[in-house]
Amino acid sequence: MSDVFADRVVIGSEDRLAEMFGGSLGKDGIKFSAGNPNADLFPTAQIKVALNDAIDKYGSQIFEYQTVSGFTQLRSRLAQWAAKTAKIKAAANNILITQGGQQALDLIGKLLLDAGDKIVVEAPTYVGALSAFDQYDPCYYDVAMDDDGLNLEELETVLQNHSDIKLLYTVPDFHNPTGVTMSLTKRKKLVELAEKYDFFILEDTPYRDLRYKGEKLPAIKSFDKHGHVLFVSSFSKILMPGLRIGWVAADEEVIAHLRTLKTSSDLETSGIMLAALNQYLENSDLDRHISSMLPTYRKRLDVMLDVLDNTMPTDVHYTRPEGGFFIWLTLPKVVNAQTLLREICIPKDKISFVPGKVFYAHRDHENGMRLNFSGVNEAQIKVGITRLAMSIREAIAATEVGAVL
Amino acid sequence: MSDVFADRVVIGSEDRLAEMFGGSLGKDGIKFSAGNPNADLFPTAQIKVALNDAIDKYGSQIFEYQTVSGFTQLRSRLAQWAAKTAKIKAAANNILITQGGQQALDLIGKLLLDAGDKIVVEAPTYVGALSAFDQYDPCYYDVAMDDDGLNLEELETVLQNHSDIKLLYTVPDFHNPTGVTMSLTKRKKLVELAEKYDFFILEDTPYRDLRYKGEKLPAIKSFDKHGHVLFVSSFSKILMPGLRIGWVAADEEVIAHLRTLKTSSDLETSGIMLAALNQYLENSDLDRHISSMLPTYRKRLDVMLDVLDNTMPTDVHYTRPEGGFFIWLTLPKVVNAQTLLREICIPKDKISFVPGKVFYAHRDHENGMRLNFSGVNEAQIKVGITRLAMSIREAIAATEVGAVL
Repeated sequence: MSDVFADRVVIGSEDRLAEMFGGSLGKDGIKFSAGNPNADLFPTAQIKVALNDAIDKYGSQIFEYQTVSGFTQLRSRLAQWAAKTAKIKAAANNILITQGGQQALDLIGKLLLDAGDKIVVEAPTYVGALSAFDQYDPCYYDVAMDDDGLNLEELETVLQNHSDIKLLYTVPDFHNPTGVTMSLTKRKKLVELAEKYDFFILEDTPYRDLRYKGEKLPAIKSFDKHGHVLFVSSFSKILMPGLRIGWVAADEEVIAHLRTLKTSSDLETSGIMLAALNQYLENSDLDRHISSMLPTYRKRLDVMLDVLDNTMPTDVHYTRPEGGFFIWLTLPKVVNAQTLLREICIPKDKISFVPGKVFYAHRDHENGMRLNFSGVNEAQIKVGITRLAMSIREAIAATEVGAVL
Repeated sequence: MSDVFADRVVIGSEDRLAEMFGGSLGKDGIKFSAGNPNADLFPTAQIKVALNDAIDKYGSQIFEYQTVSGFTQLRSRLAQWAAKTAKIKAAANNILITQGGQQALDLIGKLLLDAGDKIVVEAPTYVGALSAFDQYDPCYYDVAMDDDGLNLEELETVLQNHSDIKLLYTVPDFHNPTGVTMSLTKRKKLVELAEKYDFFILEDTPYRDLRYKGEKLPAIKSFDKHGHVLFVSSFSKILMPGLRIGWVAADEEVIAHLRTLKTSSDLETSGIMLAALNQYLENSDLDRHISSMLPTYRKRLDVMLDVLDNTMPTDVHYTRPEGGFFIWLTLPKVVNAQTLLREICIPKDKISFVPGKVFYAHRDHENGMRLNFSGVNEAQIKVGITRLAMSIREAIAATEVGAVL
């Protein structure tokens, strides 16, 4: 019956996200492929108290239908948080709470994209965003990433050649998958381009507050004067993914449309989860919680960079992120990351990473890989990266004697 | 900037769902307009225990990313429940857990409907389903409701005239908004039609287990031999809406596609909510909980029917449901339900109902209304319906002297 399905289902059939989680490593395997935060750092006891407090405070009514907008009190807190941490001017009415950041991406795609509409993404970019946008069958243009973020000259060439670009998607802070952060200059310039060529910027910021080094930068949204920037954030990385709470900050007109689409998509996010988060934010210090996690992640990042420095051959390149969860490693072009993973790293080394191909809109790059450092401990990093370096050396050597891996 | 939005946003601009919740009644108002269950009947204490048990049992890991399919153990329970209560043969792999029943409707629309695809809905039908399908811009055909469900002669005429109907949406048990239940004969016949004309049936059953009178009927899905029926259920009415947990039972191929679309839409439903529901189902007797609610709802239904019998003029008709939450009332054609609501019932009577128009795909009926009896107590029913009858009598009288309301 597969011919009865909508066109979007055929488009999505490669299942970009599912690919990321494949591969059986066995119990002792080391997963550099995940995008998980470290569960040991979750404030589980406090969230448990918050859930109980919310039930005690609101009683059975908290399990009734609420409103799609969600708790006004919580939305006010989020607006204050956006002002404090990202220099964004917003009120409760500029905020929509979503089912994790992923739903924000889906709803923005739903809001903006008719089939064939033009959208610019980073190359590489977050696979979950591609998977969300794929559902609306857009036409992708991709623009290379430099060490200080999106290459704006390349972007402007695309904009000059295609007058009706509707949306640009970017992860400016500790980018997934590369770990790169967009410079202050580029943030300002990007908003100018959005004004000049009249497109929306979707600024996706799940890692924004997880900075281990260097100076915090204002959000792209903070330079927005005319509503071109849709700012998306999430509690999945700074608190816990299981809350399934993300949010969008944007102009009221956009929020009103997104709210309508959310109503049609799932009615509302669970009231008890919103009430529990609100209780948590009232009784705990989110800043302090975030600060308390930074040393663990900083240490893992530093250890991974150290081991990479000490083990990788000179023709392998990798980024040096200042925060987030990921390092991006580029192999010599002769080595195919996916083949390396399937034929050597999973079966022999018992390690996994995400082959870079899935992060490209056109799946046209074979020699990159994403390494996660947040979900693995220091011992695993030392063992796993050492094995990876050895296998990469062998793969390069094998290509030199004629066998293409 | 509204010209930049996708076509689907313009389509959805009337905001079918939001209309339902409008109107300010003040504190003493009586809302027959809601679709809420009675929060006094929620097993709040047990769910609180279940949430705590789940956190104690699984620790921080329950707040990590899980899988989009959700708890296998819970899906197995749901399959058993479907077998026991609806005579459906299903295994865990035939089940997808969704963010309430609404997300199931959205994902099925996403799976099946390209713009212009043909879909049959009941006239009237559930407004949230229209709102979900609207997003994919289908072409609606509506078929009248008889006292024993969908008019199958009219349906077959539509099927004969339009060979490519893709989907039929029905609420066979205590239909929203009419309260009508589809007969056993019609259930069997509908599956035969789906086989003959090759379309999917979306069987939406949120009220199925809330029967106050008469004999329970097997689900339409129980007669399905070739995967034509997509069965959707929800815990919103039998347990509590705040869990935001619904589910689909269908063939594995369909479930696999829906799972991909769910991943792209919101990654997954909250693991802690699924674990809590699983704990609840392990430690409590859901059947007994449902049975314990029936007398309250049955009494409210009986009282509302009694007051309607005693107060309504003879040219007003209403259904006599055996379960669910709603009675459907049909006014003489000269009276417009929406005008009556806005000009008299809300400002003067301080009562609300949902004007029937929003439940029609083509919004072409003006004289129906949906009355909810589950969320109002007996005293409110007596006072509110008496006021409604009085205002209807006045409206009819007014039209007889020439003023059209």
